[in-house]
Amino acid sequence: MHEYRTHSCADLSKENVGDTVRLSGWVHRVRDHGGILFIDLRDHYGMTQVLCDPDSAAFAEVEKVRAEWCIRIDGEVKARDPELVNPKIPTGEIEVFVRDIEILGESKELPLQVFGEQEYPEETRLRYRYLDLRREKMQENMKLRSDVVASIRKRMWDQDFREFQTPIITASSPEGARDFLVPSRLHPGKFYALPQAPQQFKQLLMVSGFDKYFQIAPCFRDEDPRADRSPTDFYQLDMEMSFVTQQDVFDTIQPVIAGIFEEFGGGKKVDETWEQISYKDAALWYGSDKPDLRNPIKMQVVSEHFRGSGFAIFAKLLEQDGTEIRAIPAPTGGSRKFCDRMNAFAQKEGLPGMGYIFWRDQGEGMEAAGPLAKNIGPERTEAIRQQLGLGVGDAAFFLGGKPKSFEAVAGRARNVIGEELGLTDKDRFAFAWIVDFPIYEKDPETGRIDFEHNPFSMPQGGMEALQGDPLQVLGYQYDLACNGYELVSGAIRNHRPEIMFKAFEIAGYGEEEVRKRFGGLVNAFHYGAPPHGGCAAGIDRIVMLLAEEQNIREVILFPMNQRAEDLMMNAPSEPASDQLMELGLRVIPQE
Amino acid sequence: MHEYRTHSCADLSKENVGDTVRLSGWVHRVRDHGGILFIDLRDHYGMTQVLCDPDSAAFAEVEKVRAEWCIRIDGEVKARDPELVNPKIPTGEIEVFVRDIEILGESKELPLQVFGEQEYPEETRLRYRYLDLRREKMQENMKLRSDVVASIRKRMWDQDFREFQTPIITASSPEGARDFLVPSRLHPGKFYALPQAPQQFKQLLMVSGFDKYFQIAPCFRDEDPRADRSPTDFYQLDMEMSFVTQQDVFDTIQPVIAGIFEEFGGGKKVDETWEQISYKDAALWYGSDKPDLRNPIKMQVVSEHFRGSGFAIFAKLLEQDGTEIRAIPAPTGGSRKFCDRMNAFAQKEGLPGMGYIFWRDQGEGMEAAGPLAKNIGPERTEAIRQQLGLGVGDAAFFLGGKPKSFEAVAGRARNVIGEELGLTDKDRFAFAWIVDFPIYEKDPETGRIDFEHNPFSMPQGGMEALQGDPLQVLGYQYDLACNGYELVSGAIRNHRPEIMFKAFEIAGYGEEEVRKRFGGLVNAFHYGAPPHGGCAAGIDRIVMLLAEEQNIREVILFPMNQRAEDLMMNAPSEPASDQLMELGLRVIPQE
Repeated sequence: MHEYRTHSCADLSKENVGDTVRLSGWVHRVRDHGGILFIDLRDHYGMTQVLCDPDSAAFAEVEKVRAEWCIRIDGEVKARDPELVNPKIPTGEIEVFVRDIEILGESKELPLQVFGEQEYPEETRLRYRYLDLRREKMQENMKLRSDVVASIRKRMWDQDFREFQTPIITASSPEGARDFLVPSRLHPGKFYALPQAPQQFKQLLMVSGFDKYFQIAPCFRDEDPRADRSPTDFYQLDMEMSFVTQQDVFDTIQPVIAGIFEEFGGGKKVDETWEQISYKDAALWYGSDKPDLRNPIKMQVVSEHFRGSGFAIFAKLLEQDGTEIRAIPAPTGGSRKFCDRMNAFAQKEGLPGMGYIFWRDQGEGMEAAGPLAKNIGPERTEAIRQQLGLGVGDAAFFLGGKPKSFEAVAGRARNVIGEELGLTDKDRFAFAWIVDFPIYEKDPETGRIDFEHNPFSMPQGGMEALQGDPLQVLGYQYDLACNGYELVSGAIRNHRPEIMFKAFEIAGYGEEEVRKRFGGLVNAFHYGAPPHGGCAAGIDRIVMLLAEEQNIREVILFPMNQRAEDLMMNAPSEPASDQLMELGLRVIPQE
Repeated sequence: MHEYRTHSCADLSKENVGDTVRLSGWVHRVRDHGGILFIDLRDHYGMTQVLCDPDSAAFAEVEKVRAEWCIRIDGEVKARDPELVNPKIPTGEIEVFVRDIEILGESKELPLQVFGEQEYPEETRLRYRYLDLRREKMQENMKLRSDVVASIRKRMWDQDFREFQTPIITASSPEGARDFLVPSRLHPGKFYALPQAPQQFKQLLMVSGFDKYFQIAPCFRDEDPRADRSPTDFYQLDMEMSFVTQQDVFDTIQPVIAGIFEEFGGGKKVDETWEQISYKDAALWYGSDKPDLRNPIKMQVVSEHFRGSGFAIFAKLLEQDGTEIRAIPAPTGGSRKFCDRMNAFAQKEGLPGMGYIFWRDQGEGMEAAGPLAKNIGPERTEAIRQQLGLGVGDAAFFLGGKPKSFEAVAGRARNVIGEELGLTDKDRFAFAWIVDFPIYEKDPETGRIDFEHNPFSMPQGGMEALQGDPLQVLGYQYDLACNGYELVSGAIRNHRPEIMFKAFEIAGYGEEEVRKRFGGLVNAFHYGAPPHGGCAAGIDRIVMLLAEEQNIREVILFPMNQRAEDLMMNAPSEPASDQLMELGLRVIPQE
């Protein structure tokens, strides 16, 4: 007989009745029923009920065990009485009578219970992560994560991609966040950096003639922690292809992502067609470049109805350049109570408020209610209603000004309205490509032109486009939005050194600076660079969505806490002085 | 038509004759045959011959291209004349007449040629790695590496292992090499470390109830570079299982490794049965704990034949405690010339020399030749011959003293003898498990007892064994030897805190010290730790063996040079002063 087990705790069924078996696992729960001890014995695979009565030679030892002790038992499989069968677990028809027991690992008193659903502070959970991870939900989340990553790999292989590992101890990468640095011992005073993403390396791979690359790549950004971001390392499905257009990248990655959501999405609907929405339209319609399209609400421009109207605030606003009035239609939101609540929401978000109109049945016909309607009069109100396609029981909210000043709040209001009115279809994964991102943006304070996104994207129209107004230049650059999250981000790259230098020049970086910061890549582009493009998908976020978790730490095995500490392993910690000496470093005393 | 290609450069065959096609790729070679330009157009997949004559509208543009320019061509597929068919490449029956060409990426003058087999200094190759990687052998090596890793994953999944990612920015790990440190910005003066291996995390996973773990894991050791070691990051197939014995680990990993060597070993024989050899026997028989078993030579103890013999050096030696005489049999090595060469080899390795006997045909019978034979006389010589099973034309070499003083040289001599006599079967991957490693070793100078290998291994015999002579304690610890390399290393772990503290105590580490260094793991063992064990296999080394390369940098995409620098990316480099400031660090000026 094997030293530890003949079966897992999920294996035994009626067919094993009469067998002598050996099981190993953890004591999930012990109950004493009239002197007979019942143990739910748990392993990674399942649970088996084992029991011991005082006649058993093992009884004295079995009596000692407590929750989460690790034990090995030998015993005989017996059928349960029909009324005691537990149909909820695969082993529910049998139980095992313990003949022998070995205690493999005792447990001290538990700082958190594995059995049950009790909540614990995050610090406790992370400090005793090995206990926390034994809980059913955490086991499921981690299995899900592993299975998702495995499935991604298979899907990429099926499309003839090869996975390549790029360096982790390397040079600084230009993703815009802070690098983690690694001091060099052989070159004291010099530092390596951990890659924020394998961006430069994957592009170098394309220049090296590898046609289709992917990697489940660890990425490192020294950012301040928050709920949906790991403070240290996180993983991306990183991919790149040569000789492709933007549409080729979409056609490649869509079946991978859609397949994953179909496979692991618990039966929720997964969009089959993924709309392409320009960055500009996304801002207008949804107030976000990662819209939640489960929510059918689409904002509209309604400036004309307010221009010169009796609603002085908007009428005045519209006299300024670059201003607009936009409406958020709210089907079924037609009550004063709801409208006032949304108005309060906008105020909480820092706006003066949201004007609204709602339509109600007034005996002999429809009535438009709310202060706005009175101010602009029935004709304009009716024109608005018709434009928005609303009717009795519906409402509309209005925001005005320069779009940048209210777009984000409008987007959040749209989300809240969709949620509160039950318009958002929770049973769906809604996808859209956001395309045509501008290459540049203007800093509203300094007036400086800088890259809006990634400096390595190819401008649409190439060199010619860069000769005109930079703020009009769009890039072959795209994001994938899913249920309000950005899941994927990518671009067709700028592989032509002359266009690249020009693009950087517009953002105020001279050739020398570019060569200094991105020399490896820029040099390579002088030796026959192919057109190429790709994208990266956030693994942690995909798993979060699939596991229906709000906090990224629920889908990471051993995450740091919110202060970027690992209390279980004691990291970070003070180095030995000879380590610092070897690295040629001194710590500056903090005040 | 697609913007860049309708086919890859490996796709076209006779069936496409008459088609108008579009190809993209690199100019491998241009030849001018009587005014007609022939270009070997290369992409990741293959090569296609395209040509252009002066009548083509594209000729002027085609004339410009040089080696390694990236181009797109349109043209018509034509069958080659039968005498011009190239049967060596899949596209050898056709060629493409260029109608149109677009230059996608020009190239400056090449610092290294992609075409041909010219050798370049490593520094050139690494600085222009993107060109070096375009060369056929490098493309093949990297594809091989990727395919090996993919196949390992599939094989592990097939055995119901799940892959889990463990933290990369974490605490120091106790593998015995130097850690790479990462300064913390949020906790100035404190440092994270990059894991030398996920050892503690994989053990924590077992304590967390995950039954079967593996990971293609990046490992980081700040070691001085050498040919078979990457100076920064390298990859291991890391695996761990709960409730297992040593034999279970062998039974799990053997089919994975054997399968990989069968799949990618180019048809070389792969041992079906893997012998288990104790560490002690391996030292005696092969002079190494990673013997090359393609070499059939097995050393033997022959002390008794020299005790009190006329060969005074050995006879005297044997009067000292702990000394032995060992023989290296050398079938077919029976010539004075060969024996003298081997004797010289031993001298070069720092020994006084190797005595030898060889047997030759002397007309009416066999004669044992060499000075040793004369000194010990015919009877002892004959007894030696019979023990070693040698005959006419064979030789034997002899080394004496305390085994530790000559074992390593004996092992190397065995390798050289096997090579020179052609005994080593180059057409084979020979595997053996080396088992029963001692847990402790004694420092010959200080007399201190320290861990011989990994402090986390379970001693055979448990607590009881630790009460006796520490140097006699063997561990459930094992290596896999293949063709003279250590491919895998592993152990059944010591999961019992009381045995662990005792084991450390013997090596001079008090409980407090152990808790300080390995607190995360040791604490976890107090909460119901399961018996567990596993191993790690060096990916880079496996690929090196399969690719028949001697230098690990031939199987890594972007390796550092021997001074741990990346000259292409400029790493390591000097940090910005505000980066250091944020980290609370100052660089100590070097003299």
